[in-house]
Amino acid sequence: MQTIKALCFDVFGTVVDWRSGVAGQARAFLLGHGRPEVDAFEFADRWRGQYQPAMEACRSQGRPYTRLDVLHRENPDLVLASYGLDPAGMSAAELMVLSHAWRQLDPWPDSAAGLHRLKRGFLIAPLSNGNLALLAAMAKRSGLPWDLILGAEVTREYKPAPGAYLGTVDILGLRPDEVCLVAAHNDDLAAARRCGLATAFVLRPTEHGPCQTTDLGPEQDWDFVAQDLNDLAQRLGC
Amino acid sequence: MQTIKALCFDVFGTVVDWRSGVAGQARAFLLGHGRPEVDAFEFADRWRGQYQPAMEACRSQGRPYTRLDVLHRENPDLVLASYGLDPAGMSAAELMVLSHAWRQLDPWPDSAAGLHRLKRGFLIAPLSNGNLALLAAMAKRSGLPWDLILGAEVTREYKPAPGAYLGTVDILGLRPDEVCLVAAHNDDLAAARRCGLATAFVLRPTEHGPCQTTDLGPEQDWDFVAQDLNDLAQRLGC
Repeated sequence: MQTIKALCFDVFGTVVDWRSGVAGQARAFLLGHGRPEVDAFEFADRWRGQYQPAMEACRSQGRPYTRLDVLHRENPDLVLASYGLDPAGMSAAELMVLSHAWRQLDPWPDSAAGLHRLKRGFLIAPLSNGNLALLAAMAKRSGLPWDLILGAEVTREYKPAPGAYLGTVDILGLRPDEVCLVAAHNDDLAAARRCGLATAFVLRPTEHGPCQTTDLGPEQDWDFVAQDLNDLAQRLGC
Repeated sequence: MQTIKALCFDVFGTVVDWRSGVAGQARAFLLGHGRPEVDAFEFADRWRGQYQPAMEACRSQGRPYTRLDVLHRENPDLVLASYGLDPAGMSAAELMVLSHAWRQLDPWPDSAAGLHRLKRGFLIAPLSNGNLALLAAMAKRSGLPWDLILGAEVTREYKPAPGAYLGTVDILGLRPDEVCLVAAHNDDLAAARRCGLATAFVLRPTEHGPCQTTDLGPEQDWDFVAQDLNDLAQRLGC
Protein backbone atom coordinates (compact mmCIF):
# COMPACT_ATOMS: atom_id res chain seq x y z
CA MET A 1 0.00 0.00 0.00
CA GLN A 2 2.86 2.37 0.80
CA THR A 3 4.21 1.87 -2.71
CA ILE A 4 1.07 3.27 -4.32
CA LYS A 5 1.24 6.95 -5.22
CA ALA A 6 -1.63 7.39 -7.67
CA LEU A 7 -5.12 5.92 -7.91
CA CYS A 8 -6.57 5.80 -11.42
CA PHE A 9 -10.28 5.16 -11.75
CA ASP A 10 -12.55 3.55 -14.21
CA VAL A 11 -15.48 5.99 -14.34
CA PHE A 12 -18.56 4.60 -16.13
CA GLY A 13 -20.03 2.13 -13.66
CA THR A 14 -17.29 2.53 -11.04
CA VAL A 15 -17.72 6.23 -10.16
CA VAL A 16 -20.98 7.13 -11.90
CA ASP A 17 -24.26 5.30 -12.48
CA TRP A 18 -24.48 5.48 -16.27
CA ARG A 19 -27.61 3.34 -16.60
CA SER A 20 -29.94 5.43 -14.45
CA GLY A 21 -28.52 8.66 -15.87
CA VAL A 22 -28.83 7.70 -19.51
CA ALA A 23 -32.29 6.25 -18.92
CA GLY A 24 -33.41 9.50 -17.32
CA GLN A 25 -32.26 11.57 -20.28
CA ALA A 26 -33.62 9.03 -22.76
CA ARG A 27 -37.00 9.06 -21.05
CA ALA A 28 -37.36 12.81 -21.59
CA PHE A 29 -36.24 12.42 -25.20
CA LEU A 30 -38.66 9.56 -25.88
CA LEU A 31 -41.57 11.45 -24.31
CA GLY A 32 -40.73 14.41 -26.55
CA HIS A 33 -41.04 12.11 -29.56
CA GLY A 34 -44.32 10.58 -28.50
CA ARG A 35 -42.86 7.26 -27.45
CA PRO A 36 -43.65 6.98 -23.73
CA GLU A 37 -44.10 3.20 -24.00
CA VAL A 38 -40.41 2.58 -24.72
CA ASP A 39 -38.51 1.22 -21.68
CA ALA A 40 -35.87 3.89 -21.08
CA PHE A 41 -33.58 1.42 -19.25
CA GLU A 42 -33.70 -0.92 -22.21
CA PHE A 43 -32.92 2.08 -24.43
CA ALA A 44 -29.89 2.84 -22.22
CA ASP A 45 -28.75 -0.79 -22.38
CA ARG A 46 -29.05 -0.87 -26.16
CA TRP A 47 -27.05 2.36 -26.40
CA ARG A 48 -24.40 1.00 -24.04
CA GLY A 49 -24.35 -2.12 -26.20
CA GLN A 50 -22.88 -0.03 -29.03
CA TYR A 51 -20.01 1.10 -26.82
CA GLN A 52 -17.57 -1.80 -27.09
CA PRO A 53 -18.06 -2.37 -30.85
CA ALA A 54 -17.48 1.34 -31.52
CA MET A 55 -14.25 1.34 -29.51
CA GLU A 56 -13.21 -1.97 -31.03
CA ALA A 57 -13.22 -0.29 -34.44
CA CYS A 58 -10.53 2.04 -33.04
CA ARG A 59 -8.67 -0.67 -31.14
CA SER A 60 -8.32 -3.27 -33.86
CA GLN A 61 -10.14 -2.38 -37.06
CA GLY A 62 -8.01 0.49 -38.31
CA ARG A 63 -10.22 3.42 -37.33
CA PRO A 64 -8.03 6.21 -35.89
CA TYR A 65 -8.65 7.12 -32.25
CA THR A 66 -12.03 8.87 -32.12
CA ARG A 67 -13.31 10.63 -29.02
CA LEU A 68 -16.06 8.97 -27.02
CA ASP A 69 -18.22 12.11 -27.38
CA VAL A 70 -18.19 11.44 -31.13
CA LEU A 71 -18.96 7.73 -30.72
CA HIS A 72 -21.79 8.67 -28.34
CA ARG A 73 -23.18 10.93 -31.06
CA GLU A 74 -22.95 8.21 -33.72
CA ASN A 75 -24.17 5.27 -31.67
CA PRO A 76 -27.75 6.33 -30.82
CA ASP A 77 -28.65 6.45 -34.50
CA LEU A 78 -28.71 2.65 -34.53
CA VAL A 79 -30.63 2.55 -31.26
CA LEU A 80 -33.20 5.08 -32.46
CA ALA A 81 -33.66 3.10 -35.66
CA SER A 82 -34.24 -0.07 -33.62
CA TYR A 83 -37.31 1.68 -32.15
CA GLY A 84 -38.46 2.94 -35.55
CA LEU A 85 -37.27 6.47 -34.82
CA ASP A 86 -35.48 8.28 -37.64
CA PRO A 87 -32.60 10.51 -36.47
CA ALA A 88 -32.57 12.18 -39.90
CA GLY A 89 -35.79 13.89 -38.89
CA MET A 90 -34.31 15.31 -35.69
CA SER A 91 -32.26 18.45 -35.20
CA ALA A 92 -28.52 18.26 -34.67
CA ALA A 93 -28.93 20.26 -31.46
CA GLU A 94 -31.47 17.81 -30.08
CA LEU A 95 -29.28 14.81 -30.88
CA MET A 96 -26.29 16.58 -29.29
CA VAL A 97 -28.27 17.08 -26.09
CA LEU A 98 -29.15 13.39 -26.10
CA SER A 99 -25.53 12.33 -26.65
CA HIS A 100 -24.44 14.62 -23.81
CA ALA A 101 -26.48 12.48 -21.43
CA TRP A 102 -23.14 10.73 -20.88
CA ARG A 103 -21.63 13.99 -19.58
CA GLN A 104 -24.38 14.37 -16.98
CA LEU A 105 -24.34 11.12 -15.12
CA ASP A 106 -24.81 11.17 -11.37
CA PRO A 107 -22.10 9.64 -9.18
CA TRP A 108 -22.93 6.73 -6.89
CA PRO A 109 -23.86 8.11 -3.45
CA ASP A 110 -20.40 7.40 -1.97
CA SER A 111 -18.28 8.58 -4.92
CA ALA A 112 -17.70 12.29 -4.24
CA ALA A 113 -17.09 11.84 -0.51
CA GLY A 114 -14.87 8.80 -1.10
CA LEU A 115 -12.79 10.63 -3.71
CA HIS A 116 -12.33 13.59 -1.37
CA ARG A 117 -10.93 11.21 1.25
CA LEU A 118 -8.73 9.32 -1.21
CA LYS A 119 -7.39 12.61 -2.59
CA ARG A 120 -5.77 13.32 0.79
CA GLY A 121 -3.45 10.36 0.43
CA PHE A 122 -3.03 9.87 -3.29
CA LEU A 123 -3.01 11.57 -6.65
CA ILE A 124 -6.43 10.71 -8.11
CA ALA A 125 -7.33 10.68 -11.79
CA PRO A 126 -9.78 8.97 -14.12
CA LEU A 127 -8.31 6.30 -16.36
CA SER A 128 -11.45 6.13 -18.43
CA ASN A 129 -12.39 5.63 -22.04
CA GLY A 130 -14.27 8.93 -21.78
CA ASN A 131 -12.73 11.98 -23.43
CA LEU A 132 -11.37 14.94 -21.51
CA ALA A 133 -14.23 17.40 -22.10
CA LEU A 134 -16.81 14.76 -21.19
CA LEU A 135 -15.04 13.81 -17.94
CA ALA A 136 -14.38 17.45 -17.01
CA ALA A 137 -18.04 18.41 -17.53
CA MET A 138 -19.16 15.40 -15.48
CA ALA A 139 -16.74 16.21 -12.65
CA LYS A 140 -17.68 19.89 -12.56
CA ARG A 141 -21.39 19.10 -12.41
CA SER A 142 -20.98 16.67 -9.50
CA GLY A 143 -17.94 17.95 -7.63
CA LEU A 144 -15.65 15.02 -8.37
CA PRO A 145 -12.30 16.40 -7.18
CA TRP A 146 -9.85 14.87 -9.68
CA ASP A 147 -6.26 16.06 -9.45
CA LEU A 148 -6.07 15.70 -13.21
CA ILE A 149 -7.97 13.88 -15.91
CA LEU A 150 -6.24 11.10 -17.82
CA GLY A 151 -7.48 8.28 -20.01
CA ALA A 152 -8.06 7.32 -23.60
CA GLU A 153 -7.81 10.79 -25.10
CA VAL A 154 -4.38 11.41 -23.59
CA THR A 155 -2.91 8.02 -24.49
CA ARG A 156 -5.03 7.73 -27.66
CA GLU A 157 -5.68 4.10 -26.77
CA TYR A 158 -8.90 2.60 -25.50
CA LYS A 159 -8.82 0.22 -22.55
CA PRO A 160 -8.14 -2.69 -22.32
CA ALA A 161 -5.26 -2.06 -24.77
CA PRO A 162 -2.01 -2.16 -22.74
CA GLY A 163 -1.03 1.28 -24.00
CA ALA A 164 -3.96 2.83 -22.16
CA TYR A 165 -2.55 1.67 -18.82
CA LEU A 166 1.19 1.92 -19.54
CA GLY A 167 0.82 5.28 -21.27
CA THR A 168 -0.94 6.62 -18.18
CA VAL A 169 1.80 5.30 -15.90
CA ASP A 170 4.40 6.94 -18.13
CA ILE A 171 2.59 10.30 -18.09
CA LEU A 172 2.51 10.16 -14.30
CA GLY A 173 6.26 9.55 -14.24
CA LEU A 174 5.72 6.53 -11.98
CA ARG A 175 6.40 2.80 -12.08
CA PRO A 176 3.40 0.52 -12.85
CA ASP A 177 3.33 -0.80 -9.27
CA GLU A 178 3.04 2.77 -7.99
CA VAL A 179 -0.31 3.16 -9.80
CA CYS A 180 -3.47 1.35 -8.73
CA LEU A 181 -6.46 0.94 -11.02
CA VAL A 182 -9.78 1.20 -9.19
CA ALA A 183 -12.61 -0.46 -11.10
CA ALA A 184 -15.87 -2.35 -10.71
CA HIS A 185 -14.96 -4.58 -13.66
CA ASN A 186 -12.81 -7.69 -13.38
CA ASP A 187 -11.72 -7.54 -17.01
CA ASP A 188 -10.40 -3.98 -16.65
CA LEU A 189 -8.47 -4.97 -13.54
CA ALA A 190 -7.08 -8.08 -15.24
CA ALA A 191 -5.74 -5.95 -18.11
CA ALA A 192 -4.19 -3.48 -15.64
CA ARG A 193 -2.57 -6.31 -13.67
CA ARG A 194 -1.04 -7.74 -16.85
CA CYS A 195 0.66 -4.33 -17.21
CA GLY A 196 1.99 -4.47 -13.66
CA LEU A 197 -0.43 -2.04 -12.02
CA ALA A 198 -1.88 -2.58 -8.57
CA THR A 199 -5.61 -3.33 -8.53
CA ALA A 200 -8.65 -2.41 -6.42
CA PHE A 201 -12.07 -3.92 -7.04
CA VAL A 202 -15.12 -1.91 -6.02
CA LEU A 203 -18.46 -3.68 -5.90
CA ARG A 204 -21.20 -2.04 -8.00
CA PRO A 205 -23.86 -4.75 -8.04
CA THR A 206 -26.59 -2.66 -9.72
CA GLU A 207 -24.57 -1.02 -12.50
CA HIS A 208 -26.52 -3.10 -14.99
CA GLY A 209 -29.78 -2.97 -13.04
CA PRO A 210 -31.39 -5.15 -10.40
CA CYS A 211 -30.75 -8.40 -12.28
CA GLN A 212 -27.03 -7.92 -12.84
CA THR A 213 -25.15 -11.19 -13.38
CA THR A 214 -21.57 -9.96 -13.92
CA ASP A 215 -18.90 -8.46 -11.65
CA LEU A 216 -20.77 -9.41 -8.49
CA GLY A 217 -17.48 -10.21 -6.80
CA PRO A 218 -13.72 -10.35 -7.32
CA GLU A 219 -12.58 -12.98 -9.84
CA GLN A 220 -8.91 -12.73 -8.88
CA ASP A 221 -7.06 -11.92 -5.68
CA TRP A 222 -7.03 -8.18 -6.38
CA ASP A 223 -4.80 -6.13 -4.09
CA PHE A 224 -7.84 -4.46 -2.54
CA VAL A 225 -11.54 -5.33 -2.54
CA ALA A 226 -13.98 -2.68 -1.32
CA GLN A 227 -17.73 -2.25 -0.97
CA ASP A 228 -17.57 1.35 -2.20
CA LEU A 229 -15.15 4.28 -2.38
CA ASN A 230 -15.53 5.21 1.30
CA ASP A 231 -14.67 1.63 2.19
CA LEU A 232 -11.66 1.82 -0.14
CA ALA A 233 -10.55 5.05 1.58
CA GLN A 234 -10.80 3.26 4.93
CA ARG A 235 -8.76 0.32 3.67
CA LEU A 236 -6.09 2.65 2.27
CA GLY A 237 -5.84 4.59 5.52
CA CYS A 238 -7.35 7.84 4.21
CA MET B 1 -17.89 37.77 -22.10
CA GLN B 2 -21.02 35.65 -22.31
CA THR B 3 -19.48 33.77 -25.22
CA ILE B 4 -16.56 32.53 -23.14
CA LYS B 5 -16.99 29.08 -21.64
CA ALA B 6 -13.46 28.10 -20.68
CA LEU B 7 -10.48 30.00 -19.28
CA CYS B 8 -7.10 28.50 -20.12
CA PHE B 9 -4.11 29.74 -18.16
CA ASP B 10 -0.47 30.20 -18.75
CA VAL B 11 1.06 28.94 -15.49
CA PHE B 12 4.77 29.82 -15.09
CA GLY B 13 4.75 33.51 -14.27
CA THR B 14 0.99 33.96 -14.58
CA VAL B 15 -0.24 31.64 -11.81
CA VAL B 16 2.99 30.76 -9.97
CA ASP B 17 6.14 32.72 -9.10
CA TRP B 18 8.77 30.51 -10.72
CA ARG B 19 11.74 32.82 -9.99
CA SER B 20 11.40 32.93 -6.20
CA GLY B 21 10.53 29.24 -6.04
CA VAL B 22 13.44 28.03 -8.17
CA ALA B 23 15.83 30.39 -6.39
CA GLY B 24 14.74 28.99 -3.03
CA GLN B 25 15.38 25.41 -4.11
CA ALA B 26 18.63 26.37 -5.83
CA ARG B 27 19.85 28.15 -2.70
CA ALA B 28 19.53 24.97 -0.63
CA PHE B 29 21.24 22.98 -3.39
CA LEU B 30 24.12 25.48 -3.69
CA LEU B 31 24.64 25.58 0.05
CA GLY B 32 24.81 21.79 0.06
CA HIS B 33 27.60 22.01 -2.53
CA GLY B 34 29.59 24.62 -0.63
CA ARG B 35 28.69 27.48 -2.96
CA PRO B 36 26.81 29.95 -0.76
CA GLU B 37 28.22 32.91 -2.71
CA VAL B 38 26.27 32.08 -5.89
CA ASP B 39 23.26 34.38 -6.40
CA ALA B 40 20.34 31.94 -6.38
CA PHE B 41 18.14 34.34 -8.38
CA GLU B 42 20.79 34.56 -11.08
CA PHE B 43 20.97 30.77 -11.02
CA ALA B 44 17.19 30.65 -11.51
CA ASP B 45 17.40 33.14 -14.38
CA ARG B 46 20.16 31.17 -16.11
CA TRP B 47 18.12 27.98 -15.73
CA ARG B 48 15.03 29.70 -17.09
CA GLY B 49 17.20 30.96 -19.95
CA GLN B 50 17.55 27.36 -21.16
CA TYR B 51 13.79 26.97 -21.34
CA GLN B 52 12.97 28.50 -24.73
CA PRO B 53 15.99 26.99 -26.57
CA ALA B 54 15.12 23.52 -25.22
CA MET B 55 11.49 23.85 -26.38
CA GLU B 56 12.60 25.35 -29.70
CA ALA B 57 14.48 22.13 -30.42
CA CYS B 58 11.09 20.38 -30.21
CA ARG B 59 9.18 23.13 -32.03
CA SER B 60 11.40 23.59 -35.07
CA GLN B 61 14.58 21.53 -34.93
CA GLY B 62 13.23 18.06 -35.36
CA ARG B 63 13.38 16.83 -31.78
CA PRO B 64 10.20 14.89 -30.96
CA TYR B 65 7.97 16.34 -28.26
CA THR B 66 9.81 15.87 -24.95
CA ARG B 67 8.20 16.53 -21.58
CA LEU B 68 9.19 19.64 -19.69
CA ASP B 69 10.17 17.49 -16.68
CA VAL B 70 12.82 15.92 -18.92
CA LEU B 71 14.00 19.29 -20.25
CA HIS B 72 14.15 20.56 -16.67
CA ARG B 73 16.39 17.60 -15.83
CA GLU B 74 18.67 18.24 -18.82
CA ASN B 75 18.92 22.01 -18.63
CA PRO B 76 20.55 22.53 -15.21
CA ASP B 77 23.63 20.62 -16.37
CA LEU B 78 24.62 23.63 -18.48
CA VAL B 79 23.79 26.00 -15.63
CA LEU B 80 25.76 23.99 -13.10
CA ALA B 81 28.74 23.87 -15.47
CA SER B 82 28.58 27.67 -15.85
CA TYR B 83 29.29 27.87 -12.12
CA GLY B 84 32.07 25.28 -12.29
CA LEU B 85 29.87 22.58 -10.77
CA ASP B 86 30.05 19.12 -12.34
CA PRO B 87 26.69 17.30 -12.45
CA ALA B 88 28.56 14.05 -13.22
CA GLY B 89 29.71 14.06 -9.62
CA MET B 90 26.19 14.38 -8.23
CA SER B 91 23.64 11.64 -7.59
CA ALA B 92 20.71 11.14 -9.93
CA ALA B 93 18.37 11.47 -6.96
CA GLU B 94 19.84 14.82 -5.97
CA LEU B 95 19.57 16.17 -9.51
CA MET B 96 15.99 14.91 -9.72
CA VAL B 97 15.11 16.80 -6.53
CA LEU B 98 16.65 19.94 -8.03
CA SER B 99 14.75 19.56 -11.31
CA HIS B 100 11.52 19.06 -9.35
CA ALA B 101 11.90 22.60 -8.04
CA TRP B 102 9.61 23.46 -10.96
CA ARG B 103 6.89 21.21 -9.51
CA GLN B 104 6.96 23.04 -6.17
CA LEU B 105 6.50 26.66 -7.12
CA ASP B 106 4.31 28.82 -4.91
CA PRO B 107 1.33 30.57 -6.49
CA TRP B 108 1.11 34.35 -6.46
CA PRO B 109 -0.89 35.42 -3.35
CA ASP B 110 -4.12 35.95 -5.34
CA SER B 111 -3.92 32.84 -7.53
CA ALA B 112 -5.69 30.13 -5.52
CA ALA B 113 -8.51 32.42 -4.35
CA GLY B 114 -8.91 33.93 -7.82
CA LEU B 115 -9.08 30.51 -9.47
CA HIS B 116 -11.70 29.35 -6.97
CA ARG B 117 -13.84 32.36 -7.94
CA LEU B 118 -13.28 31.93 -11.67
CA LYS B 119 -14.11 28.22 -11.42
CA ARG B 120 -17.66 29.15 -10.45
CA GLY B 121 -18.33 30.71 -13.82
CA PHE B 122 -16.02 28.91 -16.21
CA LEU B 123 -14.21 25.69 -16.93
CA ILE B 124 -10.62 26.42 -15.84
CA ALA B 125 -7.52 24.61 -17.08
CA PRO B 126 -3.83 25.28 -17.54
CA LEU B 127 -2.70 25.78 -21.12
CA SER B 128 0.94 25.53 -20.13
CA ASN B 129 4.13 24.15 -21.55
CA GLY B 130 4.45 22.17 -18.33
CA ASN B 131 3.71 18.45 -18.48
CA LEU B 132 0.76 16.83 -16.79
CA ALA B 133 2.52 15.26 -13.78
CA LEU B 134 4.38 18.51 -13.10
CA LEU B 135 1.22 20.63 -13.21
CA ALA B 136 -0.78 18.11 -11.16
CA ALA B 137 1.89 17.97 -8.44
CA MET B 138 2.05 21.76 -8.36
CA ALA B 139 -1.73 22.11 -8.14
CA LYS B 140 -2.06 19.48 -5.42
CA ARG B 141 0.65 21.11 -3.30
CA SER B 142 -0.98 24.55 -3.49
CA GLY B 143 -4.68 23.82 -3.88
CA LEU B 144 -5.06 25.16 -7.42
CA PRO B 145 -8.56 23.90 -8.29
CA TRP B 146 -8.21 23.10 -12.00
CA ASP B 147 -11.18 21.39 -13.64
CA LEU B 148 -8.70 19.52 -15.83
CA ILE B 149 -5.11 19.94 -16.90
CA LEU B 150 -4.36 20.65 -20.53
CA GLY B 151 -1.34 21.99 -22.37
CA ALA B 152 1.72 20.87 -24.28
CA GLU B 153 1.67 17.23 -23.24
CA VAL B 154 -1.89 16.73 -24.45
CA THR B 155 -1.48 18.54 -27.77
CA ARG B 156 2.20 17.51 -28.06
CA GLU B 157 2.97 21.05 -29.23
CA TYR B 158 4.75 23.74 -27.27
CA LYS B 159 3.31 27.28 -27.19
CA PRO B 160 3.41 29.52 -29.15
CA ALA B 161 2.88 26.94 -31.93
CA PRO B 162 -0.73 27.34 -33.18
CA GLY B 163 -1.43 23.67 -32.55
CA ALA B 164 -0.98 24.20 -28.81
CA TYR B 165 -3.92 26.64 -28.76
CA LEU B 166 -6.11 25.10 -31.46
CA GLY B 167 -5.53 21.58 -30.19
CA THR B 168 -6.70 22.67 -26.75
CA VAL B 169 -9.83 24.29 -28.20
CA ASP B 170 -10.57 21.10 -30.11
CA ILE B 171 -10.17 18.91 -27.02
CA LEU B 172 -12.61 21.16 -25.18
CA GLY B 173 -15.14 20.75 -28.00
CA LEU B 174 -15.51 24.52 -28.21
CA ARG B 175 -14.98 27.26 -30.79
CA PRO B 176 -11.80 29.38 -30.41
CA ASP B 177 -13.81 32.45 -29.34
CA GLU B 178 -15.35 30.40 -26.53
CA VAL B 179 -11.91 29.92 -24.98
CA CYS B 180 -9.96 32.74 -23.32
CA LEU B 181 -6.22 32.53 -22.71
CA VAL B 182 -5.19 34.17 -19.45
CA ALA B 183 -1.51 35.14 -19.42
CA ALA B 184 0.98 37.66 -18.11
CA HIS B 185 2.88 37.56 -21.42
CA ASN B 186 1.94 39.63 -24.44
CA ASP B 187 3.58 37.22 -26.88
CA ASP B 188 1.54 34.27 -25.59
CA LEU B 189 -1.67 36.31 -25.89
CA ALA B 190 -0.71 37.46 -29.40
CA ALA B 191 -0.26 33.86 -30.53
CA ALA B 192 -3.60 32.89 -28.97
CA ARG B 193 -5.36 35.83 -30.65
CA ARG B 194 -3.96 34.79 -34.04
CA CYS B 195 -5.75 31.47 -33.46
CA GLY B 196 -9.03 33.23 -32.66
CA LEU B 197 -9.04 32.82 -28.89
CA ALA B 198 -10.18 35.54 -26.50
CA THR B 199 -7.41 37.08 -24.41
CA ALA B 200 -6.94 38.30 -20.84
CA PHE B 201 -3.75 40.02 -19.71
CA VAL B 202 -2.80 39.74 -16.04
CA LEU B 203 -0.09 42.04 -14.73
CA ARG B 204 2.83 40.25 -13.02
CA PRO B 205 5.40 43.06 -12.78
CA THR B 206 7.90 41.14 -10.63
CA GLU B 207 7.93 37.79 -12.42
CA HIS B 208 11.49 38.54 -13.52
CA GLY B 209 12.42 40.32 -10.30
CA PRO B 210 12.32 43.94 -9.15
CA CYS B 211 13.95 45.30 -12.32
CA GLN B 212 11.59 43.66 -14.81
CA THR B 213 11.43 45.49 -18.16
CA THR B 214 8.99 43.33 -20.13
CA ASP B 215 5.25 42.73 -19.95
CA LEU B 216 4.67 45.72 -17.68
CA GLY B 217 1.45 46.48 -19.49
CA PRO B 218 -0.81 45.35 -22.32
CA GLU B 219 0.73 45.75 -25.78
CA GLN B 220 -2.55 45.15 -27.63
CA ASP B 221 -6.18 45.80 -26.83
CA TRP B 222 -6.64 42.48 -25.11
CA ASP B 223 -10.25 41.57 -24.33
CA PHE B 224 -9.58 41.86 -20.60
CA VAL B 225 -6.78 43.48 -18.61
CA ALA B 226 -6.54 42.70 -14.90
CA GLN B 227 -4.25 43.48 -11.98
CA ASP B 228 -4.44 39.91 -10.69
CA LEU B 229 -6.75 36.87 -10.76
CA ASN B 230 -9.16 38.28 -8.18
CA ASP B 231 -9.47 41.40 -10.31
CA LEU B 232 -10.08 39.18 -13.35
CA ALA B 233 -12.80 37.33 -11.47
CA GLN B 234 -14.43 40.66 -10.63
CA ARG B 235 -14.29 41.79 -14.27
CA LEU B 236 -15.77 38.49 -15.44
CA GLY B 237 -18.61 38.70 -12.94
CA CYS B 238 -17.52 35.78 -10.74
